[in-house]
Amino acid sequence: MSSDTTIPQTAEAVASSEAISPSSKLAMFGADQPLELDSGVELAPWQIAYETYGTLNADKTNAVVVCHALTGDQYAASTNPVTGKQGWWSLMVGPGKPIDTNHYFVICANVLGGCLGTTGPATLDPATGSPYGLNLPVVTIRDMVRAQARLVEHLGIQTLFSVIGGSMGGMQVLQWAASYPEKVFSAVPIAAAARHTSQNIAFHEVGRQAIMADPDWRGGNYISEGVRPTKGLAVARMAAHVTYMSDESLHQKFGRNLQDRENLTFGFDADFQIESYLRHQGMTFVDRFDANSYLYVTRAMDYFDLAHEFGGSLPAAFKETKTRFCVMSFTSDWLFPTSESRRIVQALNAAAANVSFVEIDSDRGHDAFLLDVPEMFETIRGFITGAANARGIPAPGEGATS
Amino acid sequence: MSSDTTIPQTAEAVASSEAISPSSKLAMFGADQPLELDSGVELAPWQIAYETYGTLNADKTNAVVVCHALTGDQYAASTNPVTGKQGWWSLMVGPGKPIDTNHYFVICANVLGGCLGTTGPATLDPATGSPYGLNLPVVTIRDMVRAQARLVEHLGIQTLFSVIGGSMGGMQVLQWAASYPEKVFSAVPIAAAARHTSQNIAFHEVGRQAIMADPDWRGGNYISEGVRPTKGLAVARMAAHVTYMSDESLHQKFGRNLQDRENLTFGFDADFQIESYLRHQGMTFVDRFDANSYLYVTRAMDYFDLAHEFGGSLPAAFKETKTRFCVMSFTSDWLFPTSESRRIVQALNAAAANVSFVEIDSDRGHDAFLLDVPEMFETIRGFITGAANARGIPAPGEGATS
Repeated sequence: MSSDTTIPQTAEAVASSEAISPSSKLAMFGADQPLELDSGVELAPWQIAYETYGTLNADKTNAVVVCHALTGDQYAASTNPVTGKQGWWSLMVGPGKPIDTNHYFVICANVLGGCLGTTGPATLDPATGSPYGLNLPVVTIRDMVRAQARLVEHLGIQTLFSVIGGSMGGMQVLQWAASYPEKVFSAVPIAAAARHTSQNIAFHEVGRQAIMADPDWRGGNYISEGVRPTKGLAVARMAAHVTYMSDESLHQKFGRNLQDRENLTFGFDADFQIESYLRHQGMTFVDRFDANSYLYVTRAMDYFDLAHEFGGSLPAAFKETKTRFCVMSFTSDWLFPTSESRRIVQALNAAAANVSFVEIDSDRGHDAFLLDVPEMFETIRGFITGAANARGIPAPGEGATS
Repeated sequence: MSSDTTIPQTAEAVASSEAISPSSKLAMFGADQPLELDSGVELAPWQIAYETYGTLNADKTNAVVVCHALTGDQYAASTNPVTGKQGWWSLMVGPGKPIDTNHYFVICANVLGGCLGTTGPATLDPATGSPYGLNLPVVTIRDMVRAQARLVEHLGIQTLFSVIGGSMGGMQVLQWAASYPEKVFSAVPIAAAARHTSQNIAFHEVGRQAIMADPDWRGGNYISEGVRPTKGLAVARMAAHVTYMSDESLHQKFGRNLQDRENLTFGFDADFQIESYLRHQGMTFVDRFDANSYLYVTRAMDYFDLAHEFGGSLPAAFKETKTRFCVMSFTSDWLFPTSESRRIVQALNAAAANVSFVEIDSDRGHDAFLLDVPEMFETIRGFITGAANARGIPAPGEGATS
C-alpha cells in the first residue's frame, strides 16, 4: 500500500521545538513497498515529503523535478514553515519565473536521509520505536533519486519534462539522467560534479568530525537522550559556509570591516563582521537542521562517483541518452569548479548527447546558484523554453504573468 | 635584568606529558624590561625561547632571523623534542642548504603567544600563579616581531643580514622590514600577505569556534582544571589543514582512494584515505600544540593589516626602505594567493624598493613553502648569495660543505 497524508512522522519534529508544516505533502510506502538501497538494505516502511507548484497538464508532460542541495528542502518556492523564510529558489521557480509554474508542474521532495519529512535518521525505526540514529543505512545519491522516482510513479507521471538542481541537486540530476534516461526529457545540472573530489570529501569530514566531537551527539542517539549537538553542528555549518562563498564575495561583502565598533578589541569576541556573520550562520542553522541528517547527506555526496557505477566510464553513464542537457558552472565556484562541469560535458560529448554548456561569470562562489544571477535565469529560461517547444508543450510567453 | 637559561617555564610543559627539550635557549626579561604590546598592556616578566644554527661572525653581520608559521616552532633545522621529527625547515636551513649555516648565523624563536617556551597563554601568570589562559593580552604580529627584536638586541646584534619566513612567518618578515627598516638588510616573505583577508579570518574563526565549543576548553582554564580540549583542537587542525593543500595535490595524493578496503562500508568510519589522513593530522597535532595558543596565534594573523598601521597606505610601510626584498608565491596557493604577493610587490615598487618577485609553479598549495620545491630553494639560494655579496660577507660556495 502507499498513501498520502499531510502529517509528518519524524521524531525530529517532536524533539525539536520547530513544528514541520502540515502543508507538506507526504507519500508513504508500506512494508510491502520497500526501497532498495545501494547498501543492500531494503528500507520499509518509508516516506517522502514533497511540495508541488503549478498544475500537471492533461498529458502529464509538463512535470519538472527540482532537486535540492545539502541543506535545502522541499520548500523551493513556498514559505519554509521552520524558518518562515521564502523558498530557497523563489527567484527561479514561480509564476513568470524561469521555471514558470504557469506552464510547468514542479515537484520538489525532501531528500532521503533528510530531516523535513522524508525518512531520515530522525525517523522512528519501526523495529525499535526509537529514532533510527546511525541505524539508518547510509544512503546514496542514487538512493535519493530512486525515492524520487517512486514518488513520480506514485503521482502517475511517466516522463519528466525536466530535472533541475544545483550542487547536490545537480548530482541528483545527473543520476536521474543516468538511471532513468527514458524518463528525463531535459536535465539541468548546475554547479555540480559527477563525483565528489577529495577536497570536497575533506571539508565534509571536518564537519562530521565537528558533530561527532560534540558530547551531546551521544553516538547519534541524542534525540532519545533529550539533547542536541548544536555546537558541533554549528561549527560544521560554519566550516561549510566558508566554502560556499568566493574570496571575492567575502572581500566585497565584509572585507576586514569591524563589527559595530571602531577599534579592535584585543579579545576573542567577534571583532570582524565576517566572524559575526559566520556565527549567525552556525546558530540559525541548528534550528532548522538535524545533525544526523547532516552526517547522512554529506556521506551521500562523498559516495557519489557516477563513472564508478558504469565501470569507470563517465560517457557510459549517458550511453545513447536522448536527454537534452544544459550544464552550468560559475567562474568563482572553487568547491564545484568549472573543471568538474567540463568533465561532465566532455562525457556527454563522448556519448553524442545534446548538450549546451555555460560558464557564468559571477563572483558569488558556489552559492551563486541560489542567488540573483540574471545570466543564470536567462540561460535557464531560454533552455527550458526551447525544450518545451521540442516537447510540444506550450512555451512560456503564451500566458505567462511576469 | 635579562638572563639566559635553558629551563622552560611554561605550565603547558607541565600539564602535557610532553616535555620541552631543555636544549632550547631562553632569554628572560624581568619586571623592569616589559614588552609593550599593541593592546596597550606592558607584559612583564616575559621570555622568548629560540634556537640558533651556525656561528655569528666577528662583525655580527651574518645573522638571519627565520620566522615560523602558525603551528611552527623554533626547531627550524634541529629535531623537534616534542615530536622527535626533524626541523620543519631542514630542507632550507643547514650546512650547504639555501640558508647555509656554514655562512650564516640563523636565529629562530618561538612566537609570542606560542607554546614551546616563549610567553603564551599556558605560561604562569605571576599575578595569580595559574596559567594566563585568556588573561594573556591578545598579541599581534607586531608584538611577535617586537619580542624578536628584543631578543636580537639581547644577542648584541645591530643589523640582520636577512629575515625570512613563509605564511605567518612572511607576515613577520614584512613587519620586521616596516618596523625596523634600518636593521633589515634583506627580507624574504614567502606565501605571505600584508593583511589577512576575510576568507582567511573566516577559516580561523571556524577553528576557534571548534576549540571553544569543546566543553573541555573550560573558558580557557583547562590546564588548571586538568583537562584539554583535544577534540575541538583536532577539528580546528583538520579544518585548517584542508586549506593548506591544493585541490590538485589532494587529488594526486588521495583522489577517491579507499582506505584499506575494496568497497565502501556504508558507514561513518574513514572510508576514504583523505579521511584517515585528516583524522591523523588532527590527532597528532593535539600532542604538540596548545589550544589557547591556537586561539592567540590565529588572532594575531587575523589582526594583521600592515597598511592600517601606516594610515591605510601599504607603500608608506616601506617608505625610503633600503631593504632588498625577494617576494615569493606559489601558483596553487589559494589561501595566500599570488594576488596578495603582487599587492606587496606593487607597494614595494611604489616605494621604489629593491624587490624581486617570483611566482613559483607548484601544485602543492600553501604548504609548498615547507616542502621540497627545488625552484624555491634555487631562488632563495640565488637571492641570498647576491645579498651576501652586496653586504660584503663571504658568499656560499666559498667553503660550503654541500
